[in-house]
Amino acid sequence: MKQLRAAIFGASGYSGGELVRILSRHPSVTLTKLFADSSAGKIVDEVLARSPQRATTTRFEAYDDSIELDADVCFLALPHGEAMDRAPSLLDQGKIVIDLSGDHRLQDRSLFQKFYKRQQTSSDEILAQAVYGLPEWNASAIQRARFIANPGCYATSVILALAPLVVEKAIEPDSIIVNSMSGVSGAGRKASLEYSFAEVNESVKAYRIGDHQHIPEIETVLSGLSNEEVKITFTPHLIPITRGIYTTICAELSAPLTELELQESFNKHYSEKPFVRFSPERIPELRRTTGTNFIDIYAQLLPERNQVMVISTEDNLVKGAAGQAVQNMNLVCGFPETEGLL
Amino acid sequence: MKQLRAAIFGASGYSGGELVRILSRHPSVTLTKLFADSSAGKIVDEVLARSPQRATTTRFEAYDDSIELDADVCFLALPHGEAMDRAPSLLDQGKIVIDLSGDHRLQDRSLFQKFYKRQQTSSDEILAQAVYGLPEWNASAIQRARFIANPGCYATSVILALAPLVVEKAIEPDSIIVNSMSGVSGAGRKASLEYSFAEVNESVKAYRIGDHQHIPEIETVLSGLSNEEVKITFTPHLIPITRGIYTTICAELSAPLTELELQESFNKHYSEKPFVRFSPERIPELRRTTGTNFIDIYAQLLPERNQVMVISTEDNLVKGAAGQAVQNMNLVCGFPETEGLL
Amino acid sequence: MKQLRAAIFGASGYSGGELVRILSRHPSVTLTKLFADSSAGKIVDEVLARSPQRATTTRFEAYDDSIELDADVCFLALPHGEAMDRAPSLLDQGKIVIDLSGDHRLQDRSLFQKFYKRQQTSSDEILAQAVYGLPEWNASAIQRARFIANPGCYATSVILALAPLVVEKAIEPDSIIVNSMSGVSGAGRKASLEYSFAEVNESVKAYRIGDHQHIPEIETVLSGLSNEEVKITFTPHLIPITRGIYTTICAELSAPLTELELQESFNKHYSEKPFVRFSPERIPELRRTTGTNFIDIYAQLLPERNQVMVISTEDNLVKGAAGQAVQNMNLVCGFPETEGLL
Amino acid sequence: MKQLRAAIFGASGYSGGELVRILSRHPSVTLTKLFADSSAGKIVDEVLARSPQRATTTRFEAYDDSIELDADVCFLALPHGEAMDRAPSLLDQGKIVIDLSGDHRLQDRSLFQKFYKRQQTSSDEILAQAVYGLPEWNASAIQRARFIANPGCYATSVILALAPLVVEKAIEPDSIIVNSMSGVSGAGRKASLEYSFAEVNESVKAYRIGDHQHIPEIETVLSGLSNEEVKITFTPHLIPITRGIYTTICAELSAPLTELELQESFNKHYSEKPFVRFSPERIPELRRTTGTNFIDIYAQLLPERNQVMVISTEDNLVKGAAGQAVQNMNLVCGFPETEGLL
Repeated sequence: MKQLRAAIFGASGYSGGELVRILSRHPSVTLTKLFADSSAGKIVDEVLARSPQRATTTRFEAYDDSIELDADVCFLALPHGEAMDRAPSLLDQGKIVIDLSGDHRLQDRSLFQKFYKRQQTSSDEILAQAVYGLPEWNASAIQRARFIANPGCYATSVILALAPLVVEKAIEPDSIIVNSMSGVSGAGRKASLEYSFAEVNESVKAYRIGDHQHIPEIETVLSGLSNEEVKITFTPHLIPITRGIYTTICAELSAPLTELELQESFNKHYSEKPFVRFSPERIPELRRTTGTNFIDIYAQLLPERNQVMVISTEDNLVKGAAGQAVQNMNLVCGFPETEGLL
Repeated sequence: MKQLRAAIFGASGYSGGELVRILSRHPSVTLTKLFADSSAGKIVDEVLARSPQRATTTRFEAYDDSIELDADVCFLALPHGEAMDRAPSLLDQGKIVIDLSGDHRLQDRSLFQKFYKRQQTSSDEILAQAVYGLPEWNASAIQRARFIANPGCYATSVILALAPLVVEKAIEPDSIIVNSMSGVSGAGRKASLEYSFAEVNESVKAYRIGDHQHIPEIETVLSGLSNEEVKITFTPHLIPITRGIYTTICAELSAPLTELELQESFNKHYSEKPFVRFSPERIPELRRTTGTNFIDIYAQLLPERNQVMVISTEDNLVKGAAGQAVQNMNLVCGFPETEGLL
Repeated sequence: MKQLRAAIFGASGYSGGELVRILSRHPSVTLTKLFADSSAGKIVDEVLARSPQRATTTRFEAYDDSIELDADVCFLALPHGEAMDRAPSLLDQGKIVIDLSGDHRLQDRSLFQKFYKRQQTSSDEILAQAVYGLPEWNASAIQRARFIANPGCYATSVILALAPLVVEKAIEPDSIIVNSMSGVSGAGRKASLEYSFAEVNESVKAYRIGDHQHIPEIETVLSGLSNEEVKITFTPHLIPITRGIYTTICAELSAPLTELELQESFNKHYSEKPFVRFSPERIPELRRTTGTNFIDIYAQLLPERNQVMVISTEDNLVKGAAGQAVQNMNLVCGFPETEGLL
Repeated sequence: MKQLRAAIFGASGYSGGELVRILSRHPSVTLTKLFADSSAGKIVDEVLARSPQRATTTRFEAYDDSIELDADVCFLALPHGEAMDRAPSLLDQGKIVIDLSGDHRLQDRSLFQKFYKRQQTSSDEILAQAVYGLPEWNASAIQRARFIANPGCYATSVILALAPLVVEKAIEPDSIIVNSMSGVSGAGRKASLEYSFAEVNESVKAYRIGDHQHIPEIETVLSGLSNEEVKITFTPHLIPITRGIYTTICAELSAPLTELELQESFNKHYSEKPFVRFSPERIPELRRTTGTNFIDIYAQLLPERNQVMVISTEDNLVKGAAGQAVQNMNLVCGFPETEGLL
């Protein structure tokens, strides 16, 4: 069978590197191009910490749009603001584009401006093509799409944890309080005093309280799924781990619920989903998802408080980025959803 | 001036060891006895990681209640359930007792039974003598006390963060959602697979959701301060750090508040308190309090959500345990509140 | 093709769990039995941190030697002293046995007694059958073997780093100074204060200086390869990482050597070896081998000192244990050497 | 008594910050100026992780040499190359100067050029005034000095571990093999991908093998103490800790030695030294010295190998930098050697 040819833009970053690792083992994909402007000319194995294979002489390249691109699908693992410069011309060339940045996740330009502190410059037509790539809730649209806006890492952990409850109207849509903890790789691969080992180890710090760019993404998606206006309070924290997100959510119940009904809400939507592991019994441990495309979800009632606690955990670079991007590619291209991801 | 003679029970644990370090530098205190049944006979410097001085031949001893105890004040850094076996006889001998365990923090025996899963066996008279040792809110009672129930580590971080707002009726007393992260030393010094480096590093785990023994402590104290019934939802998390607690709280405002009014609520109560560092500008970093008796507190309005976020951080072994115990001793004994603690 | 049936003894430990993960993805192997006395009855996914698949109801079992064992190959991931109780009867039943413990690595019973502080109780016949499972240097004997003594984790890192130089007589065989650093998983999965996060984090400790049980293993194997008596000074250190070994070696040159000759010594022996990545240019980073069966080796001359520095790094649970065990199984059973390991 | 006035140059770095903390508690010193060009104008408490006190409004300043400096002693916690630009004029103004950089540790300009890759530009007169500030071996010269070259962090850990043995001629002076592990703060407070948490955690890396700038410092000092040419092989490693150095040394014995003679070599020189804790029984643990000015030293014979292993550990920012600088100041200024350091 003919292999799908894939190119990665931003291949030397943490998400890009994870894409290299996953796709180099994907049975239906051949990696044809690894673009990374800042590492152009360097050998891939020298830059990426965990080399995918014994020895390669493959080098990162600088992208030059004058050359015809030998690729069917392009993954944009670029910083916010750069993907919208790249996506339109690739779409024009007929490429499938999977954008891991936040550039095309919000259809509302004013929300984008407010939270990303920059303008969304893609055309209305381009923006309208972008399909939100959350396979567990949007698979049929993804299967027909050519342009995927891959969800944010925090957004994935929050939306998947809450969607069954908002869809089932089990919780008050404006009562949601979310606390997340993330590892340092979530900030991307870059030189920064703030992320130095000596500053991060044995510490914790909350940041962007009430102002994080994943808030409008989460609210928009959950509101769309439930046809109600969903509002969340979201506080992310940086903790001394390299990879992973741990999300703890509290929400008010709309009406009393039994444990069985609670479980049924999740099982109904997720029992057939290959990457969601819902358990009403085991409180998640972050490391159980590290290096995998799984998201682990747990839910528990607090009947005296008329509340439900939901906890989810995932690897921010896999289910929160590169793994989900490949899951989307599988759906777009007609491969089995789990191919290359187990 | 005559030195106060102090004995520590449970001196080889993490809180006990921290007491050794603090008290061995305290200008008004002489450490006379270090009791530690499991480490009896061992040299103190061999057991404690950070030896307080150049070299000592001091050894831990097993306690034998047949011998007269050469001490004015006794610190009980014992596991829950053991302090209530020890405190009554020491009080009978006229000692000042500072109990770092949870045994005498709850006056309500049924709450104790429910959350500590054991019976409180001290007499009503003994239990009634126990004064809750939170100096920022209970100093006058502490100054007259002979028996102190030193607050829990999580409880300290939550109560100090919330008390100004509940006292000022600025928040809805049943709307409080608390998420805390704690280091491994919070579980005490013990052999356990669960706290092995290989299990904890690069991981996170929530535990005792809605069931932690500090919940009734927090609710009782805050209700007492505000004369309203305060209810909290509390979720603790174990994260890969050795020391420290980071607490993030969300609560609903009773009425709209300006940033200045919010700040004034905290400054009014804390501007003269030597160990509370309130800042409306700087989101706390856990490591800034490590090794100190300070608690750092931050507050921020979320006007669109009609909520306030309050964050506090402290060293669980210092302000959350041994440091606060010495702060209480200073008040009980008439020393300056900060002596030995700066 | 008929699948090889494999059983793991000690399947809930760190090496055992790694075997579960590797073998559950091995295309030619079916895992039939997971024995773990201490975890008997527990679901595999509950115990192992990184579950190999979506959801299984497989449970660990207690071994009962009265039942016929449905397995062609048995992996013994047992503590020292237990493997020699198990191996003989399994060999009698005609099973292929791969022993990951140290029980059968030393043919010299007095050396075993001296360093393992216990008696080797297997019969002479059994002990003589044990083939040292270092595929890079012993492949032909391994291919004919039914009983493999899988090398120690430190021993693998030291022997592979030094063997080319001792074989080529490039270094003085009694001049070798080895310092290794290891992660906490090297001590096995067990409750121990010594390995608690709060004791290990932000610390380092050397241990068993001049007395580690891998010293006779390394000396015996290197002496055998070079027909000279090789003597090493070996100091292991525990550092705050979960997985991995980093080994730094200094040895005196027998005669002046050029950089090219040095590289040639390694390339001659390793250029065709699939899991050895020798580089004369890049100083190894431990994390590059984490989760892989690779060992990275670097060598550098210090001409002014007439010495050579050799550095190697590996994942102690993979190339240092479970991965190498599977590599040995591949050779014994006639599968491609790298099957299931890339 | 009149307070000594002290200024710190480079006060916002890790060593500079440690000086701020130590000196702000020193009973005989008043901090008058905190210079930090990159943090000029910022509040000290905002920049330093562990604020020394409750609240200060002290700000870092940019140095301007046109203004008369209100200080008796100047600490230069500046990067290599910057201290030699600053020291001469301060000495000219009659200040006591304690230089924590490497600029004035080597009297031999060609060695400086070779290892620091830059020229030493101080005049011969200035360079000749610099006294090597290792109090345990050079106290009388330090007491008469006005200009101190404070030792390197690795150099301190190696020289103090070896000096008794080289002085006593107990070891072969060209047989010394040193391996050190250091925390990330050793690299200074700076933005760098190399020191990002995500790159450092769960990893180890050797660097500057045979080429580190502390090699000539160690060799020169030990040769001077022993009147023999001492040569070392030195390999530093970066490991995932914030603070601390752990040094493991192997050397050949000149002649057979008993354990008692070995201990006597150390006790003879160190039993009266307040910051050296020699133990022949306890293998050092790094964390026991964290935050202190102690260096812990251990020695063990390997009689079968005719070798001795010596291990030392210290806090790189205290005994390896700021603490030792204050110890030197105490000697220069006639204060008790331990003042402000216990």
